[in-house]
Parts: sequence; C-alpha cells; structure tokens
Amino acid sequence: MTIRRLSIYTRCLTQLEEDGVKTISSQELADRFSLNSAQVRKDLAYFGEFGIRGIGYQVSALKSELQRILGLDREWPLALVGFGNLGSALFNYKGFSRQGFRIAAIFDDDPVKVGRVVGGVPVLTMKELPREIKARNLTIGVVAVPAEVAQGVVDQLVAAGIKSILNFAPTRLKVAKDVRLKNVDLTIELENLSFYLAQGIH
Amino acid sequence: MTIRRLSIYTRCLTQLEEDGVKTISSQELADRFSLNSAQVRKDLAYFGEFGIRGIGYQVSALKSELQRILGLDREWPLALVGFGNLGSALFNYKGFSRQGFRIAAIFDDDPVKVGRVVGGVPVLTMKELPREIKARNLTIGVVAVPAEVAQGVVDQLVAAGIKSILNFAPTRLKVAKDVRLKNVDLTIELENLSFYLAQGIH
Repeated sequence: MTIRRLSIYTRCLTQLEEDGVKTISSQELADRFSLNSAQVRKDLAYFGEFGIRGIGYQVSALKSELQRILGLDREWPLALVGFGNLGSALFNYKGFSRQGFRIAAIFDDDPVKVGRVVGGVPVLTMKELPREIKARNLTIGVVAVPAEVAQGVVDQLVAAGIKSILNFAPTRLKVAKDVRLKNVDLTIELENLSFYLAQGIH
Repeated sequence: MTIRRLSIYTRCLTQLEEDGVKTISSQELADRFSLNSAQVRKDLAYFGEFGIRGIGYQVSALKSELQRILGLDREWPLALVGFGNLGSALFNYKGFSRQGFRIAAIFDDDPVKVGRVVGGVPVLTMKELPREIKARNLTIGVVAVPAEVAQGVVDQLVAAGIKSILNFAPTRLKVAKDVRLKNVDLTIELENLSFYLAQGIH
C-alpha cells in the first residue's frame, strides 16, 4: 500500500470520527469519499484486527493505528527555511500542527527578518543551522525559498545533517541517495480541474 | 488511469525532454522516477501509438498528448481569492504559469489591498466577482483565505457561477454536486517523511 493512501484513509477516518461514526465497512468508506472500492477493501484487509465481521472497521481504533504507522502519534520539530510569503503562510498553516508537525526554528538570511521572534519561534541565519539542529532536535527541513536558490539551501541543510526534506520550490533538486526529498507541487490538483474542463465533463 | 498519474507522467516526460532524451521504454521511465513498473507499462499501453516497438515511447510526442488530455495546451484564467501570505505566494508561484494557469484577477475584501495592481493584475472586492467572471472569462477559483472564512468564500464563488474550485484552506467545505472542489493538503507529503522516520527506515 502506498503511504499516500494511508494518509488519505487517516483523513477520512478523522472526518468520520468527527461525525460520530463508530464503525464503517470498506464499501461505505469508498462510497462516502469517492475512493476505488476494490482498492480500499484490499488495503484495509491488512488491518483485519480492527474489523468486526458483518459490521465493519472500528473508526477510532483504525485511525489511531494508521496515525501510529505514519508517525503522527508524536511531535516532529521542523526547520523552516525561507520566511517570505510562502514561508509565512506555512508557518501559520493549521494543517501542520494538527498532524503533529511543529516549526521549531525559522532560517532566513534576510537581515530584516533575522532576530525576529514569531509565535515564540526565532528567525535565525543559515549559519546557525548546524548548531540548532542538535539543540532543537530538528528532524525535517521545509524549503520555502525561490526556485533559484533552493539547491543551495538544500545543500546547506544536508551538510548540517538533515536527511528528510520537504521542498516547495518548483524546481528539480539533487540530493545524495541517503537523503529523502519530497517535492510539493501546488499545481497537480489544478490539473485535475483543467482535465475535466478540457474534456467538457461537468 | 487516474488523472494524478497522468500529471506525474507529464512531469517525468518534461524532465526527460529537458535532459535531451528522445525515446524511453516504460521500464526505464519507471526505474528513473521510482514508479511502479507494472503500473507504468499498463498505463502507457493506452498510448501505444506514441511507442516504437523495441525502442520505446517518443518523449516529446507523448508529453504533448498527455498535456492535451490534461488541458495544459491552453491558458486557464484563475480567480484568486485571498491575498494574504498564501495568496501572495501562489500569485508568485512559477509552477502555475508554467502549466498554463494564469491568475487573472485577485479578490480580497481587505480595504488596504483593494485597488492595488500587482504584476498587471487588479485586487478587487468579492462584490465585483460576478461581473469579472464574465469580463475576464474566469473558469477556476483558487481559495487562499483562512479556514474560518473559506466556506463563505466558496459559497460566493459558486453563487457567481464558478464550478471548479481549488481550496488551500485546511478545512472541510460543502458544495453542490455540480461543483468540482479539489483540496490541496500541504501536509500529505510531510507524512511520507514522518512515516520513514517513525519506521526507522533510512
């Protein structure tokens, strides 16, 4: 099963829990969230222990198990690099903290920004990164700088010991094999909309 | 085939084209971009006409065909609602224009912002939306407002005739069945990183 699907099921189960749903069958889950029912059945079969024959899966217990697998049962301190519009938006994005991701330090070499403290979090220079990684136990780097400078920033993060990077800059980055780099492409979902518009399907 | 996979193949082919690769087999494509090779083979079989037996698919021709299917062979004028940090970041995001998405009007009821013109694009009030949709042929609404006000904004977009909406606010929104709503969740890729960290896989 892809990790992405685990994330999607976790979101669905969280919604169901908020709606007061106690148990759900894979078919109902698929119908309710427009998922592929054969795929859902197959995926959830791995979690048979959270199902009751003829009734369905226990929503809260299954959600907790998926969260545990995804590492969402603990807090991950993030290093945010770049505190322009995108960095500020990410810092204020409620979705991060809801899943246990906490921006614990911000890095930006703009002298206007350095030294500020936002919501208790300091804006530091890139030079301070290696020391802060240890001091603040930063495990994931989030890159929110312009595309032109993203490779340099990633190189600095890696040199400072960061092995997991989430990149928002729309550019191709190179990292060593032992570094896990995920790119967030803000246009992918837009293409779902343009597909239907282009096909004339309403 | 899911639309998402079409988008991913398009990106891979664009990279290959930039690298000067003329033809590629489905196996090479899968290896190079760490995709599921059985899935790639099955998906690309639909586009057999762009393949040469024993050699592979023609990179440029297949890319153009996928772009056409996704509606990326034309320009889509977007209505951006919300011009705070996230809205500003999206306005400056190069990935949009690269795929033919152009923010043609910005809407924000903040009196400090209304009346400004950024990069030739005016910041207007929500009241002006219905008129501007027709005048500027706006087809997709992009929601970049705080979660608390997102439902109200979506309702206004729908009332003004917009049927395709891309939402960045981390909240659940309700729309009528004839409205296509896609939510961008900025944390999903982070969970891929936390998964590996939690599992202790490096």
